[in-house]
Formats: sequence, structure tokens, C-alpha cells
Amino acid sequence: MTLNAYDVLERVRGEGPLVHHLTNWVTIFDCAQVVKCLGASPVMAHAPEEVADMTQLASALVLNIGTLTTSMVEAMKRAASAANKKGIPVVLDVCGAGATRLRDVKSLELLEAARIDIIKGNSSEIARISGEEVKTKGVDSSETGLDVARVAVLLARRRRAVVVITGATDVVTDGQRLFRVGNGHELMSRTVGTGCMAASVIGTFTAVTKDWAAGAAAALCCFGIAGELAAQTAKGPADFKSQLLDRLYALDRPTVEQRERIEARDA
Amino acid sequence: MTLNAYDVLERVRGEGPLVHHLTNWVTIFDCAQVVKCLGASPVMAHAPEEVADMTQLASALVLNIGTLTTSMVEAMKRAASAANKKGIPVVLDVCGAGATRLRDVKSLELLEAARIDIIKGNSSEIARISGEEVKTKGVDSSETGLDVARVAVLLARRRRAVVVITGATDVVTDGQRLFRVGNGHELMSRTVGTGCMAASVIGTFTAVTKDWAAGAAAALCCFGIAGELAAQTAKGPADFKSQLLDRLYALDRPTVEQRERIEARDA
Amino acid sequence: MTLNAYDVLERVRGEGPLVHHLTNWVTIFDCAQVVKCLGASPVMAHAPEEVADMTQLASALVLNIGTLTTSMVEAMKRAASAANKKGIPVVLDVCGAGATRLRDVKSLELLEAARIDIIKGNSSEIARISGEEVKTKGVDSSETGLDVARVAVLLARRRRAVVVITGATDVVTDGQRLFRVGNGHELMSRTVGTGCMAASVIGTFTAVTKDWAAGAAAALCCFGIAGELAAQTAKGPADFKSQLLDRLYALDRPTVEQRERIEARDA
Repeated sequence: MTLNAYDVLERVRGEGPLVHHLTNWVTIFDCAQVVKCLGASPVMAHAPEEVADMTQLASALVLNIGTLTTSMVEAMKRAASAANKKGIPVVLDVCGAGATRLRDVKSLELLEAARIDIIKGNSSEIARISGEEVKTKGVDSSETGLDVARVAVLLARRRRAVVVITGATDVVTDGQRLFRVGNGHELMSRTVGTGCMAASVIGTFTAVTKDWAAGAAAALCCFGIAGELAAQTAKGPADFKSQLLDRLYALDRPTVEQRERIEARDA
Repeated sequence: MTLNAYDVLERVRGEGPLVHHLTNWVTIFDCAQVVKCLGASPVMAHAPEEVADMTQLASALVLNIGTLTTSMVEAMKRAASAANKKGIPVVLDVCGAGATRLRDVKSLELLEAARIDIIKGNSSEIARISGEEVKTKGVDSSETGLDVARVAVLLARRRRAVVVITGATDVVTDGQRLFRVGNGHELMSRTVGTGCMAASVIGTFTAVTKDWAAGAAAALCCFGIAGELAAQTAKGPADFKSQLLDRLYALDRPTVEQRERIEARDA
Repeated sequence: MTLNAYDVLERVRGEGPLVHHLTNWVTIFDCAQVVKCLGASPVMAHAPEEVADMTQLASALVLNIGTLTTSMVEAMKRAASAANKKGIPVVLDVCGAGATRLRDVKSLELLEAARIDIIKGNSSEIARISGEEVKTKGVDSSETGLDVARVAVLLARRRRAVVVITGATDVVTDGQRLFRVGNGHELMSRTVGTGCMAASVIGTFTAVTKDWAAGAAAALCCFGIAGELAAQTAKGPADFKSQLLDRLYALDRPTVEQRERIEARDA
């Protein structure tokens, strides 16, 4: 398999897909801006009366339980069902899974209530969704000592979904193939919202690809490269976030092709 | 009619009006910061028990349906009624009108439930509110091919309101006069929140003017000039937004008077 | 008493406490980012079903009524009770107290429903909570002409809490000792979110200290120093906020020890 991440970005810029979000209140602006920086159109709408209608207009749906409530999760289920009917990818960021019983229960409810095409989290969150026993600390933990690739592959096969585990090296798998994405920078973990933004970038890239595992890997590659470039001159986390967005906006083919660090193998 | 946009800005800085918002969760920070950068005071409050009290303290009310819910719209009605009683301007940004039935229905409900003094949107949103048939794509569309000036004037006369249609050239009308504001920059459309911020700037400027159409035109002029200045050195959309706010904060009379591009004529 | 503010910051960086927030939708991102810039972990969660669980994982709880609703306040009570049981500090930012009856009533409800360890506001907000008669203007007012130190000390003794009044000089007291913190910069008052962020910094610092009054003073000192440094090169309020966060992230011992302006005396 040959995957050219820039090709996907170029398609995003050409098609400008609408990406519908039901997300958290902390990073909602950044999720919108990152989609816009890619040349696509974000929309955030969570009223139960309109989520299905909005999803009808969209090319991808991104769900994030970072500041979940029970009513928000019900709206997510409606949106996901509409997305399933339309055949567009549904990304679920299981933000903070493992931190509280509510997050575990609601994550599983979402996985049962609709077809979640792409399950995304850090290693402790995904381990919890997989039923693995891990300790967690809020929405920010990732040290689990698990074989993340194995956890991802097993979950992908069981749920018939693409599974994305973010970390120093990101892992993406559909149960058959395993992508490892080495792009990114440590400053991303010091900046609030990079995890949520990654889910939005994945939603945007898979909106224009049929191979969602490859699309998700391309998304993390481009996002990571923008992070690498931003880190070269960033004065701190706040400046870094601003530069990350602007580097993503300006990303060109030579830069992506030179820096792309995606390894693909059989799972 | 001679309109000096800087005179209005100066009055804002001198009086520092309180501008009450019931707005969306995506750009709520930017709406607050833009008001503050003008030398005025933002307040965001949406609890139904307090919206009328807060409006009593305010000099303008800004409503935005970007992430509407039915309960938020009910709170908006209460706030708008209180604003009507007090005689302060009510700005409604019909963000995303046309995208879903809920947005159309709730926009019209708001227009019926209270006197909306300034109706603001892009061309597709305003066309929808006017009953014109247009296609839309989320909250981000503007290509409609309509005669926007005519749509604005007809709506202004029917609703006895000021109508603002933002775009490459902004149109402002009270049904009698028509202002075209040529200030602004294409980067504004790449940056999430500029549309919502424009509504907040309009609210702030009309808070200190009796002629709300002229005040709205002055608002868009100053905001657009800040955008032009920011675009000169911005590295991308994120840096642009930061510079836009800081340029607005530092705007001086010579700059505004030199760059002001407002044309006024009979409607 | 000798208080070394940098020592507390160093402890924050070493321990990386989790700081749970139930806060407003305007500055929620900035509250998260400021905690992260300190080397700690923010978490924002407000669903009534999970707030107690999340508080169990946390080392401090920060409450802010900036965009309160009655259901949000009920969730705050649950979280505060859980924090009381665990013995971690509860910070309440009485944002906008005095502006509406709802804010006054709900602030007092919170003070009655649980032990609030640190009550924080500007002078008009704290005066209102104390029962003093003051005029207010939204969430942004501070000119009251009161003897703020006296108001703070009396409230601290009555509520058996630490009271923090922010202003050009911040006042912190536990009723026995009175700290005056002279660090900070006027640009902080031009930037939306600095008040809310200050509460988050106080939460983070008191998470690792037993002496909460001293911890709060150290927090305001470090935050103020970052503001002083940011103001040296900021181009305006937006750039200032970015630099404030990044300066806080990079704060070192010589800078803090040289600039620290904390005066302590008996109350």
C-alpha cells in the first residue's frame, strides 16, 4: 500500500467537506478552526431537533465526550444514526474514558447505539473501552504500559471499526492493517485541545476518502507535521497552538512528502 | 449624510457600554474579547432567571443562534423583551439559518416574539429569513447569486428593522438608506468567529448611537479596517485573529479616516 | 512568615495535580490551558452523574458562576461536597455577583451548601457576597471605593475561608494574616479571562499546599509576574494573553524571586 498524505489534504482543500461536530465546550473553537484551516467547513450543532438534519448536510460526523451530559449523548446517538444511514464516517473521541463511570457507560452506549466507524483516544482511554484494566487521571493520561498496537487491533476486530490510539507514535488500525505515524511533537501534549483537534482532522480527512484507516493515518501525519514545524519557532504552548493552525493552513506537498513518517504493515 | 466611523468608536471608548450576549459556545470567547478590545464591557449570561435582569444593566443585546437549543431560544426571547422595554438595540445573528428546519423556525420565532432591531447574516442566511429559496451548506455559506441589496431592503421594510448582510462588501439598510461597506479582507472568511464578532461589534457601536443603520455601518467599517491591517502581517488564520483583535484595540483616527470605505445612498 | 512563590510553582510542576473545574463557557479553554501551562492537569466536567467521581480523582476544585444555570449550580454543590469529604481545596469565583439577583442567591447557596475554602472575586463582587451595598456593572466592575482589606478580613472570619480580592493590588486573607500581592499589569484587565484564569491558578497552587492563603498569594504572584513579562512585548490584549500563558509556562526561579511583591502582615 502506498499512502500519500498530501494527496488526501489536497482532496480536502478541493472538496471542502462539511464536518459536523457534537463536541465539548473546552476546545470547540479549536476543533472548528482546525477544520477551517484545512480548507473544509466546520459546523457545531447539538440540539436534538436538528442534529439529524445537520448530519444530512455533512460529509463526516465527529463526536467527543469531553464535557458530556446525558442529553448530549442522546443527541450524539441521533446524529450517529443519521450518519450511518447516509454512509458518512463517524469519529468518536472517547475523551476521558476511564476517569468516571459515566464516561465508560456512555462510551459503550454510543458504541452500541450506532456504528462508530473510527474510535479514537489515548492508550488509557482505548484500553478502558476495550475492557482492559488501566489507571487513569482525568482526560490527560496516557502512560499505561500496554501493547497499544495489540489493544487497538483486537478492538478494531471486535467492533469492526478503525481504532486510533494517539501518543508519541500514533497507531491506526482497521484490524487488518496497522499504521504507525511517527509525526508530531512533544509540545502537542502541553497544549490543550490537540487531541480533540486530531479527531476533527481525522473526520475531515475521512470525509474525502473511502479507506478510512489510511485517511486517519494521513490526517495524523499532516497534523503531526504541522506540529513539528510549529515547534521549531514556538515560544510556548499558546504560541504553539497558533502556529500549529497556521502551519496546517499553509502545508505544501514538498514539506509533507519529505517529513511523512507513516509505516504500514499487516496487523 | 456624513458618517465618521471613528467618531462612533471614540464614543464607545468613552462610554464603555455593557453589551449582553446570548450566543453560541464556539466563538463566545472571541465575542467577549472583541467587545473588550473596543473599550466596552461584554457580559454573557443565558440562565432564564437572570437574562432580563442582565439586560436591564446593558446598553445593547446580541443574540446568536450558532449553537441554539430550544431553551436557549426561550431565554433569548425573555432577554429581547427586556431590551425592547428598555429601548436598547437588539442584534440577531441568524447564524446557520437555512441549514436546518430548527434554525429557520427559531429565527422566525425570535423575529415574531420581540422587536429585533438589527438582523444580521450572510447572504444565504438573510435570504432564507426573507423567504427566498437558497441552497445552504452549514453555517459557512454565502454564494447565493441574489441581489443582496434588494433582499436586504425588502426585509428591512417588512420587519421595520436594520438588515445587515456581510460579505466581500457588506450591506446595511434600514429600508430607507443603503450603506455599502467595502472594508475587510478575505482572511476574515478563513477565520472562525469573525462573523459572530462582527455582530458583537455592531451591538457595541449601536449601543452608543441613535442611528442604528449608520452605527452598524461604522462598526463593520472599523472591524474591516482592523482586518485589513491584520492581514498585512498575519502568518495564517490563527495569527490573523490575534492581530485583528489587537489592531481593533489600537485603531486611531487617521487610520480609520484614511481607510474608511462606506458608501451611502437612498435605498 | 516567609513565602517563596517559586517553591510552590516548583511543587506544582513536580506533582502535576489534577484540577477539576465547573466553570463558564466563555473562558473554559483558557482555564484549562493556564493549568496545563503550570505543569498540572485540568479537567472540566459538569454532568451531575459524574462530578463527584471526577472530584475524587482531583487535588483541587474550581467553581465559577460566570455563565451559571440552576442545574450547573446543583452540579457544583455535588462536586463541592465531594471535595469537602476528600479534603481538597474548593475555590469559588463569584464571577458577576451583584449583577443579578440570581448570581447573589446562587453564590450564597453555594456558600451554605458546602464548605467553600477560597472565595475569590473583584472588590464589587466580594462586597456583594459580604452583604455590602455596592453598584455593579456586569462581570467587569471593580471601582467600589471600599476598604477592600477590611471587607476581605471580615468575610474570611465570618465564613472561615480564605478570601481573595483581585485588583491593582490583590488582597488575600484567612482572617488572621493579610497578604497584599503587587504583581500584575493593567493589560490583564483588558483581556477576557484573566480573572477566571487567576482562580484556576489559585486552585492549582493550593492543590499542593497546606497553607491555602499563602498558596493563593503565591499563585497570584506568579500569575502577575507572567503578566508583567508579557506586557513588556505584547502588541495588544490578544497577543498579551498568548504571551501570558507562555511566560507562565517558562517562569524560572530568578525571575520570580526578583519580581515577587508579596507583603504579609497580621490581619
